[in-house]
Amino acid sequence: KTIKLAVIPGDGIGHEVVPGALGILERLGEIHGGLKFEFEHFDYGCDHYLQHGDMMAPDGLERLSQNDAVFLGAVGDANKVPDHISLWGLLIKIRREFQQEINVRPAKVFEGIRSPLANPKDFDLMVVRENSEGEYSSVGGRMFHEEHEIAIQSSVFSKRATSQAMHYAFDLAASRGKMVTSATKSNGIYHAMPFWDDVFKEISSDYPDVSTTSEHIDALSASFVTRPERYDVIVASNLFGDILTDIGAAIMGSIGIAPSANLNLNGKYPSMFEPVHGSAPDIVGKGIANPVGQIWTAKMMLDHFGYTELGSKLLQAIEDTFREGIMTSDIGGSASTHEVTTSILDKLQ
Amino acid sequence: KTIKLAVIPGDGIGHEVVPGALGILERLGEIHGGLKFEFEHFDYGCDHYLQHGDMMAPDGLERLSQNDAVFLGAVGDANKVPDHISLWGLLIKIRREFQQEINVRPAKVFEGIRSPLANPKDFDLMVVRENSEGEYSSVGGRMFHEEHEIAIQSSVFSKRATSQAMHYAFDLAASRGKMVTSATKSNGIYHAMPFWDDVFKEISSDYPDVSTTSEHIDALSASFVTRPERYDVIVASNLFGDILTDIGAAIMGSIGIAPSANLNLNGKYPSMFEPVHGSAPDIVGKGIANPVGQIWTAKMMLDHFGYTELGSKLLQAIEDTFREGIMTSDIGGSASTHEVTTSILDKLQ
Ligand SMILES: CC(C)[C@H](C(=O)O)[C@@H](O)C(=O)O
Ligand SMILES: CC(C)[C@H](C(=O)O)[C@@H](O)C(=O)O
Repeated sequence: KTIKLAVIPGDGIGHEVVPGALGILERLGEIHGGLKFEFEHFDYGCDHYLQHGDMMAPDGLERLSQNDAVFLGAVGDANKVPDHISLWGLLIKIRREFQQEINVRPAKVFEGIRSPLANPKDFDLMVVRENSEGEYSSVGGRMFHEEHEIAIQSSVFSKRATSQAMHYAFDLAASRGKMVTSATKSNGIYHAMPFWDDVFKEISSDYPDVSTTSEHIDALSASFVTRPERYDVIVASNLFGDILTDIGAAIMGSIGIAPSANLNLNGKYPSMFEPVHGSAPDIVGKGIANPVGQIWTAKMMLDHFGYTELGSKLLQAIEDTFREGIMTSDIGGSASTHEVTTSILDKLQ
Repeated sequence: KTIKLAVIPGDGIGHEVVPGALGILERLGEIHGGLKFEFEHFDYGCDHYLQHGDMMAPDGLERLSQNDAVFLGAVGDANKVPDHISLWGLLIKIRREFQQEINVRPAKVFEGIRSPLANPKDFDLMVVRENSEGEYSSVGGRMFHEEHEIAIQSSVFSKRATSQAMHYAFDLAASRGKMVTSATKSNGIYHAMPFWDDVFKEISSDYPDVSTTSEHIDALSASFVTRPERYDVIVASNLFGDILTDIGAAIMGSIGIAPSANLNLNGKYPSMFEPVHGSAPDIVGKGIANPVGQIWTAKMMLDHFGYTELGSKLLQAIEDTFREGIMTSDIGGSASTHEVTTSILDKLQ
């Protein structure tokens, strides 16, 4: 079996963490025996924009779609291209056009790495993020001049995508801790969030064995810091999921280790796998970027394709590497990107 | 001089923390000499709604406006009244109708209290939140039935209110750490946040002595957990300010200690002072609610009226109380609401 991957290192440290993860995938394929990877490399990103006036080639989506999945590094560099141009021209465009309507992001405690939390209990949670609509919307615009200018930004929530995200969350919870927390803000966001609450109530009645709570995003964000062990699966809108998963990454130790999967559920297009971190222009070229976010992302991709045993091996190698103290400076170590990657690679067999 | 206060304990623990704070205000008035407080009590809240079908009396705003300030406990109890009804009928209504367009909330390290952070450096930050528009908007609605239903929620940002919040933040920073961080999300929120960024850039050019950064709300939320000591003044939209200040409260130790000021800047209406925490139905009646949020809120009100010396005395008494280990269970102690309040009161002279 051959898995065809569209590889987009993107911007900044994407170029520093993607190659190592590809090497790890190849090694795992060898270990497994009959599994091969074919990589098609794409140079899409801010430099592509500066050269060609577009974040990807005109036939970019078409070419990407001929692969089984997209494996992405990081997109964006505000010093080169305004963020809303770069992201809507590449990352968000792929999520939308490939109907990757669900974004899944785990957060859990790792032994041995430096945590910002005083006493991190044994948390292990999953955020299911609606990935196609909500607050990330191009509906709206700006009007009037100078001191009279206004901007209107419309969030759009559909019953279809909202309930799909919730079903996904409940199914996931049914196979885990049997609890779903809904991230809401119905006390402030007057129309969209009471709608969100109504859909949550409706879907939850299909899952009598899964317990539920609803928490406002402000309190929930705070609670991720003070009591993350209380959560199992959290279902959240596009924006709230974005915020919660960065906090989830922070309480694990660093934004540098968190992975994510953008899932196409209807089988018409490839899914996309990318770490939670960004392109981190401030540390580019120093060789100190944490490669674990990209490598754990590879594990999520392996799970997605049904190679869960390989996925577990990989997670184990990451954990063993941390336990030996081999880690980058963002989580308390002094190892380079290369050293961490090599250590993980060496542990695979 | 007499300060006339409209007192709204509101819901839940509001009733348990407000009376103690009023006693403290009276004591401070005596200490000062010529300062008196006159309290007008209002029973507005969810019980009022259940009895009268409205969160406040028809002439409520009119009566409140005859006072110098509103001193509020907490509003909301989803078991009694849906949150968007209770909040838009009281808290948000007062903010809007009294044109309290700026919300200011400090977060700082206190010695002696239990922190969720492993190694809280000496942070001391202020969030300036736009308090009148943005994501908290009644523009929008719901349409279609059943599986076709959609909700549209429009955020509205005006140049006037946006730049006012930013001016406030820059003026504040000029008197403190000389740094303003803008909370943005221009990579995802396509129209409103690039507008926000443009206004920020424009206003910042008036303040050459204040340094600036812009951070996306997801990264900024994470950074509040990992490196809060990096920040001085943060300026944020209504929703982003809401989220950041709950995280700010969490990293101080507990949502139970954070205060806030809703400021009317044009002098036409009273300002309102309320703690960041909610009505906490789960701990009502146990006598364990942390009174410090409400008491620190009283300090912000004293500062607002120019009694900064009294305000400093009060903050000192809070700090001394913590240092003696007299605190509620949410921050690691075992004292009751009453014991903490009494300790603070006794230290005032
Ligand atoms: C109760 C709620 C509407 C309110 C808000 O979101 O503004 C609260 O969370 C706050 O921060 O004051
Ligand atoms: C880069 C940005 C548009 C993106 C998002 O907000 O979705 C990122 O923060 C993420 O979480 O994948």
